[in-house]
Amino acid sequence: MNGKVKIGLMGLGTVGTGIVRLVESFQEDLYKQTDSSIEVSKILVQNPDKERDVFVHPDKITTNPDDLIYDEEIEVLIEVMGGIEPARTYILQAFEQGKHVVTANKDLLAAHGDELLRKAAEKGCDLFYEASVAGGVPILRTLVQGFSSDRITKIMGIVNGTTNYILTKMSQEGLPFEQVLQEAQDLGYAEADPTSDVEGLDAARKMAILATLGFHVGVQWDDVSCRGISEVTQEDIQYGKQLGYTMKLIGIAKRDDDCVEVSVEPTFVENSHPIANVNDVFNAVYVYGEAVGETMFYGPGAGELPTATAVLSDLVAVVKNIRLGINGREMSFPYHEKRLKSPDQVFAKYFIRLIVQDESGVLAKITQLMAENEISLEKVLQEPHGKGEAELILVTHSTSKASIEKFLQLVREFNIVKELKSCYRVEGGE
Amino acid sequence: MNGKVKIGLMGLGTVGTGIVRLVESFQEDLYKQTDSSIEVSKILVQNPDKERDVFVHPDKITTNPDDLIYDEEIEVLIEVMGGIEPARTYILQAFEQGKHVVTANKDLLAAHGDELLRKAAEKGCDLFYEASVAGGVPILRTLVQGFSSDRITKIMGIVNGTTNYILTKMSQEGLPFEQVLQEAQDLGYAEADPTSDVEGLDAARKMAILATLGFHVGVQWDDVSCRGISEVTQEDIQYGKQLGYTMKLIGIAKRDDDCVEVSVEPTFVENSHPIANVNDVFNAVYVYGEAVGETMFYGPGAGELPTATAVLSDLVAVVKNIRLGINGREMSFPYHEKRLKSPDQVFAKYFIRLIVQDESGVLAKITQLMAENEISLEKVLQEPHGKGEAELILVTHSTSKASIEKFLQLVREFNIVKELKSCYRVEGGE
Repeated sequence: MNGKVKIGLMGLGTVGTGIVRLVESFQEDLYKQTDSSIEVSKILVQNPDKERDVFVHPDKITTNPDDLIYDEEIEVLIEVMGGIEPARTYILQAFEQGKHVVTANKDLLAAHGDELLRKAAEKGCDLFYEASVAGGVPILRTLVQGFSSDRITKIMGIVNGTTNYILTKMSQEGLPFEQVLQEAQDLGYAEADPTSDVEGLDAARKMAILATLGFHVGVQWDDVSCRGISEVTQEDIQYGKQLGYTMKLIGIAKRDDDCVEVSVEPTFVENSHPIANVNDVFNAVYVYGEAVGETMFYGPGAGELPTATAVLSDLVAVVKNIRLGINGREMSFPYHEKRLKSPDQVFAKYFIRLIVQDESGVLAKITQLMAENEISLEKVLQEPHGKGEAELILVTHSTSKASIEKFLQLVREFNIVKELKSCYRVEGGE
Repeated sequence: MNGKVKIGLMGLGTVGTGIVRLVESFQEDLYKQTDSSIEVSKILVQNPDKERDVFVHPDKITTNPDDLIYDEEIEVLIEVMGGIEPARTYILQAFEQGKHVVTANKDLLAAHGDELLRKAAEKGCDLFYEASVAGGVPILRTLVQGFSSDRITKIMGIVNGTTNYILTKMSQEGLPFEQVLQEAQDLGYAEADPTSDVEGLDAARKMAILATLGFHVGVQWDDVSCRGISEVTQEDIQYGKQLGYTMKLIGIAKRDDDCVEVSVEPTFVENSHPIANVNDVFNAVYVYGEAVGETMFYGPGAGELPTATAVLSDLVAVVKNIRLGINGREMSFPYHEKRLKSPDQVFAKYFIRLIVQDESGVLAKITQLMAENEISLEKVLQEPHGKGEAELILVTHSTSKASIEKFLQLVREFNIVKELKSCYRVEGGE
């Protein structure tokens, strides 16, 4: 039964380098797991002359994707280039050649997952992508297999390490956003152009993948409502602390009555919730199932070796499937129709911070306005703000997003309100 | 491809009842996952007249195991009776009949896992047991598949909910062990005879299973060194708090240089370690892999529906394997030789609490004795204890268990030491 499996590797950046390293150092274990010796036989790179952190025989390096896609000896393609194109085209071509594919490419999966999976199934090929979400945490397998017999109703994820690092530093050290972002860039935790991380786009892609697998509904990246952390201020964080909350960039996917909501936004999490304690660059995915209740999965969200080992765990699965002759037969496609909630179906608690005139009756007028919009109040915090003004923090009971949006609009126009400072979703207290 | 799969259920206690409930309420989802309708067709019980929390047609109930084992229509047997015999015999008989088995029976797996798995493989049958460890947390799948490409070097588990509940209450409310145990019994969290939980035996069985799968070494329950929580005092917990530690019953499995250690013992965990915040009846398994680094998996360790859904996730896997024709072909057996560490190979930090004479030079004499035994000191805390005595807390740097045992023996005989109060392992600060 044992044999040799040749791999084509597309991309030799951080993750690609990790893959080459691990295949070498874990050769014996991989053999014991799969009855096969695994060899990275060709590597596609952009610049063959670039200096690498790992030794690769020059004969293996190529700049021509066809050297991998049309090499008949290569059975599995590992794609770690990132980006939509040309990765999408290469992968589709690989399926046409009957090759199995392992990828870490969240952008591609969140945009074209359905197309790729259908092509793979049609050609009897495997397509696995564990590394695309939460790096070293095997959360996709957990959703698909571990919770196959449960009905998942809520997924909360800290799935972007860069923003979690920034918010952790802001919370723990009282530093402003810009300064911590600069530090994160200096440490290599944030990219030179941090938009995708900071504005929540990266997290949105991962949440689309999690919601698709968790709810059996085809959610795409543009179904995810998305708000980043660049407007989060130190004042917000400090007022949240007073109320027992920690600020996190949280991806939330909920299913109620066959309708789903998926969003990424800066969120106050009650300190007692397990996800509130997930700090620095760590990721965590909290899953609530009707039968199982509360679970959480925690680990490194990125990094050379954590991501590489996730890719290789998929490779082990592909090679086992080759031995069993069942490639392409374990695919599961979303079987529930996609129905996205409208804003009047999305319910949450909200934290609202206002600057108001510091005079008698103001709180009464504001709470009156809330009541008129069917918003009830859980907590109030009022502090003087100088110049005859007061800082007013309102935390609502669970209320619809539509009501909150209408209320915020009215508040902006209200003459006793000087400024609407911020509004954040609150999670974790149910 | 779709069809009908008949199940025989052995046991209709808490978990068995949950299984009947979930098969019914999740029928549609199970069908979508497996292309098969699943029917619990026979149920083995001890007392057919007992009142049940769930409706079962009387025709399905039997007291004769042969009605399940020799029913040719039954393809899968679910065993949730517990205990070694007759469960072991029934399962072996079922394999002889070509039936697949799903079980939640940790005692059986930790004692006879190898025998059962070999028989299953010989007969081309599946044997899955996800529910045997950490109830609703799919940790066995995670170890086998999620970390298939990594080398796991450490597993730390809070795998017994009863003791975690007791220690949490003792820590948070300052109550003595006996009172909290009584409360836990009243709440149904602890059994009338709590020995198996309180003395760590239940946890030891689960750690044997985790170590076997994580390290690819055949660890049995009697390889696990085991100490319970009944001697843990409120004073120990309070002194630990002063030093930044939380008391937990921790199962530890470590592998160094191809030697393994597996133990269950009350342990002080540094508060910064993620497992320190796992409270009440929740379970968590912390896994350290060479490539992935730190990960943790958290959820309910027991309970009707969490355990039942874990059993059913295994059933889904079995039914998928039936459709794919690959039952019994995914077995993995330990491929590393079992070499257990001797006490001079087990290294950890230790917390030692002594009552000593409160006179000058005592600390010097004790630290001198430590140095002679190659133990170095990380922290010291001394407090008056009245009657010319002092309470002395010593926390060591990492040191061998053999050295600590020798030191404790010498301390007991030392004339300036009035009493050796306690000694606990300390984890989480590396």
